[in-house]
Amino acid sequence: MSNSTFDYKARWNRAAALMERDGVDALFLMKPANLAYFTGDGRPCALALLTRTQRCVVAVPACDITSVRRSSAATDIRAFQNEAEMFHGFRDVLQELGLTQATIAIEKNFFDAALYEVFVAHILPQARVVPATPIISQLRMIKDPEEIKCLKAAALVADAGMAAAARALRPGVSESEIAGEAELAMRKAGAEGWASVTYVASGWRSAMAHGPATPKIIAAGDVVQVHLAPMVQGYSADMCRTFLIEPVAADAASALRAYVEAQERGIAAAISGAVLLGIDGAMATSLEHDGYAGKFLRPVFHGVGIEHEEAPIPGGHAVIHGEQKVEQVMAGMVLGIGNCGIYRETFGVRVEDTIWVSEQGPVPLTRYPKL
Amino acid sequence: MSNSTFDYKARWNRAAALMERDGVDALFLMKPANLAYFTGDGRPCALALLTRTQRCVVAVPACDITSVRRSSAATDIRAFQNEAEMFHGFRDVLQELGLTQATIAIEKNFFDAALYEVFVAHILPQARVVPATPIISQLRMIKDPEEIKCLKAAALVADAGMAAAARALRPGVSESEIAGEAELAMRKAGAEGWASVTYVASGWRSAMAHGPATPKIIAAGDVVQVHLAPMVQGYSADMCRTFLIEPVAADAASALRAYVEAQERGIAAAISGAVLLGIDGAMATSLEHDGYAGKFLRPVFHGVGIEHEEAPIPGGHAVIHGEQKVEQVMAGMVLGIGNCGIYRETFGVRVEDTIWVSEQGPVPLTRYPKL
Repeated sequence: MSNSTFDYKARWNRAAALMERDGVDALFLMKPANLAYFTGDGRPCALALLTRTQRCVVAVPACDITSVRRSSAATDIRAFQNEAEMFHGFRDVLQELGLTQATIAIEKNFFDAALYEVFVAHILPQARVVPATPIISQLRMIKDPEEIKCLKAAALVADAGMAAAARALRPGVSESEIAGEAELAMRKAGAEGWASVTYVASGWRSAMAHGPATPKIIAAGDVVQVHLAPMVQGYSADMCRTFLIEPVAADAASALRAYVEAQERGIAAAISGAVLLGIDGAMATSLEHDGYAGKFLRPVFHGVGIEHEEAPIPGGHAVIHGEQKVEQVMAGMVLGIGNCGIYRETFGVRVEDTIWVSEQGPVPLTRYPKL
Repeated sequence: MSNSTFDYKARWNRAAALMERDGVDALFLMKPANLAYFTGDGRPCALALLTRTQRCVVAVPACDITSVRRSSAATDIRAFQNEAEMFHGFRDVLQELGLTQATIAIEKNFFDAALYEVFVAHILPQARVVPATPIISQLRMIKDPEEIKCLKAAALVADAGMAAAARALRPGVSESEIAGEAELAMRKAGAEGWASVTYVASGWRSAMAHGPATPKIIAAGDVVQVHLAPMVQGYSADMCRTFLIEPVAADAASALRAYVEAQERGIAAAISGAVLLGIDGAMATSLEHDGYAGKFLRPVFHGVGIEHEEAPIPGGHAVIHGEQKVEQVMAGMVLGIGNCGIYRETFGVRVEDTIWVSEQGPVPLTRYPKL
């Protein structure tokens, strides 16, 4: 997950300014995506404390010390032998730093409710605990040029995977095999893993919102959705294409054309300074004009970065994901546009791309042909 | 995820008895693994309420209605158009069923803390909210014969993946390619996806507790850990092997032999009626005898089923995972034994198998050779 070209000190500086703004003394981190963002090392089963005074203490399994030293920007790396030691050791870190009664921001949309209660009761019993999302998402949402390079690399890998899926797609092959060919091609192109399970949803299964590949055999006439989210250098691309296995029904072909047109209007609305929900508006207007009112799902976009779905999350969905509402498109955002799709009784179509909002306008990073 | 051969009504009956025991009126479910267990349909983005009176109401995205009807055992299936409607609709369900002020058990070790607070405040403001884990884990921990069939199928797929990894392993090949070959072989053998990311950790990377495959090239002399967790018919296997690429250092080869011996002693201790932590004791005694005291990580085992890590979770780890402590090995448990491994400065070894605790004794379901 690490990439030593990132300027972590600059990230700590920006975090410190937001901590100052919000009266927060330290960020208490356990989510791998956030550990990666702030330290360069996003392994599971690690904890970090990033203070406003820019100390960064990380605790990791003892066996990982050597590899963490290679990749982490933390100022202080500590080892633990087991989970209990990890948690108790962190109480001591807070005490050492004089933060026992401080205001600590915690990843409330990452910790499960049971673990959150254990943490607050046993590690932070005297602290004032606030959510970390307003600080972390504001930072992670705007990508720096080094992050854009990683996202471009992930997008190229997704394109390679989609090309492999397209080559393998034919009647008689299983969804699982298509997924396997796409994954192998992405591995060979440099994928480190998958930010989301690979979806290959054919025929009636394409009508579902979530369609992980199954042993179902692809048949002539099937609509096939392929959704890929490879991780490269710790960053994800998010991409979906819909393939039509001939002879396909006319309504599926027209739905696909209408969705591609709507998605392109959505992409065109992703301009720095524009209203963020204008992307939704542009897609909805196009789909409604083409007769698909009430036949598509939302949200039609979301942020993409270390996670394949991250801030900005539009509208009311933000609350459910524990995120802040964001009003404007900003240069440096990277968005997955085309999320969800048109869903009918017997089929569904979805086309999604990873789009970089550059100063000059929206730049599609995933580029495999849509029709 | 569905499998119509399961007897869901029997599961509801058993759940009702435990709800009676604990004074719970209904289970409020959102975790896909639990939705799969109780309804046969474990898609993400769905909600269910299973009452003590054995009503089972499920809410799913509108586009999924057709496919949910194919696979869900729920008595009442409702549709929603967006996330907000999903949550608000559920408040109405509680009112219809007269459960507004009831005792509702909720998956506190699944919901994140932010979402949990939204749920409790907006859907369950007058309910008495208790954790669902004591009921659900007690049920899921003991597998019925149909579940054992699925776990056997998943284990066969893991074996096929490990054989493919072994065939592909040689100096000059990347970890990513090994992972890709193993995944493609598992897809062809019937894998629906991965319960955990595929680990291929070679050379110095084998010394880490968590080693997802990277583009690192495998070299002569490398120790290589390969960890696979395919999903088949909604169930997972959990399997790790350590390969030695010759010429390998003598200490790595002896550590591997010692770990295999310890793991086999751990497996032998997995006998119905025995003390659960006896598995840990058997492995620890063997490793300490061979000079590895303080050089291995815990927990050395955990349950395997719909999830690749589930109840029983041993000792203090149970608390951190929001699970109950379990005292005894019971027939019908399926355990991943050999979790974690021996970790040294420059390498690590780990060998893990999925073991069914039958009435007749422990039965290894994953069987690829260990040495």
